[in-house]
Amino acid sequence: MTARVRVPASSSNLGAGFDCIGIAVDRWLVASVTLGGTGISIRRRGTLSAVRVRADQDLFTRGFRAACAAGGASPTGTGGGATIEAASDIPVGCGLGSSAAAIVAGALLADAAFELGLSRAKILEIGTTIEGHPDNVAPAIHGGAVLSVHTPAGLVSSSLRVSPAIELLIAVPPFPNDTKAARAALPHTLPHSDAVVAASRAAALVQGLATGDGALLGAALDDVLHVPFRRARIPGYDAVVAAAQGAGAFGATLSGAGSAILAITPRERSAPVGAAMLAAWRTAGVEAELIRSSHPVPGATVSRIPQTIPVPTELS
Amino acid sequence: MTARVRVPASSSNLGAGFDCIGIAVDRWLVASVTLGGTGISIRRRGTLSAVRVRADQDLFTRGFRAACAAGGASPTGTGGGATIEAASDIPVGCGLGSSAAAIVAGALLADAAFELGLSRAKILEIGTTIEGHPDNVAPAIHGGAVLSVHTPAGLVSSSLRVSPAIELLIAVPPFPNDTKAARAALPHTLPHSDAVVAASRAAALVQGLATGDGALLGAALDDVLHVPFRRARIPGYDAVVAAAQGAGAFGATLSGAGSAILAITPRERSAPVGAAMLAAWRTAGVEAELIRSSHPVPGATVSRIPQTIPVPTELS
Repeated sequence: MTARVRVPASSSNLGAGFDCIGIAVDRWLVASVTLGGTGISIRRRGTLSAVRVRADQDLFTRGFRAACAAGGASPTGTGGGATIEAASDIPVGCGLGSSAAAIVAGALLADAAFELGLSRAKILEIGTTIEGHPDNVAPAIHGGAVLSVHTPAGLVSSSLRVSPAIELLIAVPPFPNDTKAARAALPHTLPHSDAVVAASRAAALVQGLATGDGALLGAALDDVLHVPFRRARIPGYDAVVAAAQGAGAFGATLSGAGSAILAITPRERSAPVGAAMLAAWRTAGVEAELIRSSHPVPGATVSRIPQTIPVPTELS
Repeated sequence: MTARVRVPASSSNLGAGFDCIGIAVDRWLVASVTLGGTGISIRRRGTLSAVRVRADQDLFTRGFRAACAAGGASPTGTGGGATIEAASDIPVGCGLGSSAAAIVAGALLADAAFELGLSRAKILEIGTTIEGHPDNVAPAIHGGAVLSVHTPAGLVSSSLRVSPAIELLIAVPPFPNDTKAARAALPHTLPHSDAVVAASRAAALVQGLATGDGALLGAALDDVLHVPFRRARIPGYDAVVAAAQGAGAFGATLSGAGSAILAITPRERSAPVGAAMLAAWRTAGVEAELIRSSHPVPGATVSRIPQTIPVPTELS
């Protein structure tokens, strides 16, 4: 039995939704698994070609194994092995959820190949445990924009309403960010008054996405919880954000922890905002790539197939 | 009589929506203004009968004067005065927005009596300046549940969607809270991790109100920004909250800074939750009153006799 999965990129935080809100982005990881042989091997193409990591530490493998463990399957126990082939056009290490996509892909491939019957909630839990936070994992699974909140009853995810009048633009520079260092840059404490502002802007993000209210979105994208401590790590950040706003975006902020910068814009301002972001980065000596992503981008899909189907060549 | 106004009570914070979210509650302040005489006098009835404050420091007067000033009204005669008559069944000092209702009433009475043509946004700004925060003022004006966020372009208010499947219950003890002391109880700093939790729960509040999702509402009502520092000031708080949850409420928290306790419950659990809250308080030696408030409660309404009257000298 083999299986094939398609998982979207995602942009997390969206300013004030730190570690709890993410939205699927129209870039894709496609992966398939073929059972047989011994151990788990990974063949990577597309943006994944440059990834160098031992197979047992690979995020596909970790998602795959965790799903097997959760579903009571033993992938390599009785001589059974697996080969995962993966291709992606999601930029790696730029704050577009490439890690979450790989984990989710691995877990879904195991679920499908071994007919484990894991729920999407279980896949979310597996992905969140490996990733450390749910904000990319949830939209990778469910698509669209998703809020994920830890509750006494477990992690709860809820799909957010997104106004069709807004569009996401993501300008991706050709350098990755160091996610661990970005997290280490956060302070241990905050003034209470900043925490109050942060809470009101997280509320503004949910309401702004649903209504398309530009003032609310502008406030929401002007985060105080993490961006002030991270933005200096991304050369050109202030200029690109200012350019987006100057061209008509409601606001702009880091995509995840960066390096990419996300703008939310009225749909009709999409073209000039995108151009302004690229131009600002070019002035700073950076040739960035623009991703336009209209909502809603669907979540992961899985198909079980009798034999391996090659990953589409346009992704390789 | 030249103008009459009707303004609802409100419950602010709703747990994680600290200083930014409030919801109109089905209790009412009714006030009218009669121009003439000298100075401003206030005649109070209902829950206002016990209020003892000099007329020039009264919140009706402050709202009235601020609206006159904002409306650019200039005195055209001498000896002008006003008498405000007010009656209310909003408990005073218990976290149900009695102050905001009085300020809004005063401002709307001035606006109507002198045909100042102030927008609701301007009335909100006036009320927020006097009150210090918008979370009760906004629902008193607009009705329903309202999010208010400070932005570079000024204060933005947005009406929140509220699921018809939920109901608010407010148990009001016969003692007021000291709002200033409740605010002084807040710490100067918070762990960054608590601020992150607070933001996710503020997002959960907006999403939970809209969808009626009980797990999100439960998380949202379990605030970390202010309730942990205030709840010890309200005798019986923990027992009443636990009783509400035990009877089927999604959660319960302080209404505003207290003393009242608000529960959000599935509509069909309203009766047992209310009974459980009152019983828990009775066990603690407190005879509380229960307010049931189904959404949506409308905002302030004004009626006016269409005649122009000079602004009294004392009000300018």
